[in-house]
Amino acid sequence: MHDEIIRLMFQLAIILAAAKIGGEIAERFLKIPSVLGELAAGILIGPFALGSIDIWNYGPMFPIDHSLGSHSIPVSQSMWSIAQVGSVILLFGAGLETDLRQFLRYAKPALVVAIGGVILPFALGSSITVLFGFADGFSDPKALFMGTILTATSIGISVRILGDMRVLDTPEGITTLAAAVVDDILGILILTVVIGIHLTGGFSASTVGIVALKTVGFWLVLTGLGLFLSKHISKFFDRFRVSGAALALSLALAFLAAALAESFGLAMIIGAFSIGLALSGTPLAHRLDDPLRGVYNALVPVFFVVMGMMVDVTELGDVWVFGLVVSALAAVGKIAGSGLPSLMFRFSRAESWRIGVGMMPRGEVALIMGGVAFGQGLIGQDLFSVCIIMTIITTLLAPLILVRSFKKKST
Amino acid sequence: MHDEIIRLMFQLAIILAAAKIGGEIAERFLKIPSVLGELAAGILIGPFALGSIDIWNYGPMFPIDHSLGSHSIPVSQSMWSIAQVGSVILLFGAGLETDLRQFLRYAKPALVVAIGGVILPFALGSSITVLFGFADGFSDPKALFMGTILTATSIGISVRILGDMRVLDTPEGITTLAAAVVDDILGILILTVVIGIHLTGGFSASTVGIVALKTVGFWLVLTGLGLFLSKHISKFFDRFRVSGAALALSLALAFLAAALAESFGLAMIIGAFSIGLALSGTPLAHRLDDPLRGVYNALVPVFFVVMGMMVDVTELGDVWVFGLVVSALAAVGKIAGSGLPSLMFRFSRAESWRIGVGMMPRGEVALIMGGVAFGQGLIGQDLFSVCIIMTIITTLLAPLILVRSFKKKST
Repeated sequence: MHDEIIRLMFQLAIILAAAKIGGEIAERFLKIPSVLGELAAGILIGPFALGSIDIWNYGPMFPIDHSLGSHSIPVSQSMWSIAQVGSVILLFGAGLETDLRQFLRYAKPALVVAIGGVILPFALGSSITVLFGFADGFSDPKALFMGTILTATSIGISVRILGDMRVLDTPEGITTLAAAVVDDILGILILTVVIGIHLTGGFSASTVGIVALKTVGFWLVLTGLGLFLSKHISKFFDRFRVSGAALALSLALAFLAAALAESFGLAMIIGAFSIGLALSGTPLAHRLDDPLRGVYNALVPVFFVVMGMMVDVTELGDVWVFGLVVSALAAVGKIAGSGLPSLMFRFSRAESWRIGVGMMPRGEVALIMGGVAFGQGLIGQDLFSVCIIMTIITTLLAPLILVRSFKKKST
Repeated sequence: MHDEIIRLMFQLAIILAAAKIGGEIAERFLKIPSVLGELAAGILIGPFALGSIDIWNYGPMFPIDHSLGSHSIPVSQSMWSIAQVGSVILLFGAGLETDLRQFLRYAKPALVVAIGGVILPFALGSSITVLFGFADGFSDPKALFMGTILTATSIGISVRILGDMRVLDTPEGITTLAAAVVDDILGILILTVVIGIHLTGGFSASTVGIVALKTVGFWLVLTGLGLFLSKHISKFFDRFRVSGAALALSLALAFLAAALAESFGLAMIIGAFSIGLALSGTPLAHRLDDPLRGVYNALVPVFFVVMGMMVDVTELGDVWVFGLVVSALAAVGKIAGSGLPSLMFRFSRAESWRIGVGMMPRGEVALIMGGVAFGQGLIGQDLFSVCIIMTIITTLLAPLILVRSFKKKST
């Protein structure tokens, strides 16, 4: 335990320094979003690259923890925990910054955009897997899984980009954000069903219904309760005189929502976002601006560097052709699947394009889903590598296109 | 791993809420420092009290991790790591807030105060252990250990109290802080020697010399290097344009110093404090004021609540008489041992009293030392319980007296 703490401190020092150096190089010299620099820094210093080099009598700085029996998480439990705390803070902050009225105003287009962004990628992903012979037919869990993984949307990446560009509150920003939340919920539902089919050889309609009801119901209850109580919460926290109480108590609420969401089969980040959104209209939200920024700047980069670390570049192997095709379909699927419905809601072509591109990155969601499927034997090393390729390409490409698409507006 | 993350999020939510509720009750209703409320909250919700209650089909919220084979750390690895990060931030912040010139001006009295605060408690602690029959003689490692544990000073507790009262920069505040750092170094040296005697049945002068040289040498090199480079570091960090760079890079430096200190046999918090002190005179220090406060308010309470959790109130058993006597000697030893030398340096009686009391709390240092000695079989359950009693009493009593002693000044 003692040695582990020393290693953790070294790792944190390296991760934070690498995040800011990578971010600086990306933003200043490459003119690309700093989050890409953080991701690249993670790949570079991670357990599959520099991090595996032996340091005199110390061993590698970022050893792979084989005890977990899964390829999805190559960092220590403690580092993973700190990264998760970072992701909760990222989404809680995004929720707080969102204009709730605007959010509700765009709920309808967001829902349609989300559904489009699920159906088309799912169809494309499962079809191509059958076509390339990686699955026996459309009912093969492998085909279903590859469809599912293409429905994922990395809410973290999009939020970070939109936030850094300060366009989180534009109509297309809000629509993207809301649709990404819904897509995450739909993706989790579909994954549960596919794993159920894989494990039991079938999945009854009633089981599907129960899972869906539980997940969607919990989300609605959490968000509704948050909204209903938000003013009381804000007032209650306001009564504390002890220093830092508003921040600590708000974070406590965010962690609680995250834990509850994960307990009910949702992702932690959805819980954190919902509670942030619920509090966004209160006086508390403004008071949190400054203190939350410090926590954000200290912990969110850790999350993105650790995400980069999860990418095993050595395992891309011989499936790169299929990987590139899947990546192309993943991009087209979201841009068309989410972009075209946007046109129906009077978004301009430029705005619809931004929404489609904003939904493109698969990020940590696809990696986590792939890890679960790989760990349960649903897919093998080959398809897991395809997931990695697809994640890298969509996650790196989307911000590049997104930044350009918003810059056009201003010129 | 999945379940562990859910549990961690629940725990973080509970810890942060308990910290602020406990702190509020302490400060507003009991008129005592909020840190005492955080410690008490930790004891109350910890694995030896409420935290052990089974929650429906979930088990206890704060289960004791028996796999570690030590009584000193009853929380999970992840929670312990987050608490340690909190302690590093606490001491880094204290270093940053300290006026370096003043610090150096009071280096001489601090050294004498520290030596007095080591010799007298050591003599009292080992004598009473022999007198009560818990050790066979003065050369018995048990007697030596009980002497050692009384030399410890919890730099964390004193810093928090002095900081909360905004008297960290008074002559007596600086002297206490500097003497506490030296005491921690001396205490670690003595502990190393005592454990060496226990394990080998003797300890050569050359080995003692090497340990002392390595430890003190490292500290001087770290602090000296930090001071020498501080202006360049400040300028270098200033060049980054990416948001939050100054905070993240400074924290990276603090974690690096902490890891290096621990690698060289010192405590992490000493490394973090030294690097903060080195940077305290630079423009960077001022720019860190605001962003660091957020991180501080989010993570430092976690450290103090987890410290409270380490106190096993159920294990105090039948040694409470000896425990009370040791606690009394621990109080007298520091107040006299550190207070009397202060008088020699033209501190007034009131100021000397404050210095002595400020050196009194043993806090996490004694608990960690006790855990190490217990884990290595040097002491048994009985003396470990005595360590706990002594820690609780000195840690709770010192702030109470300290706050009063400073209030007298203003009236």
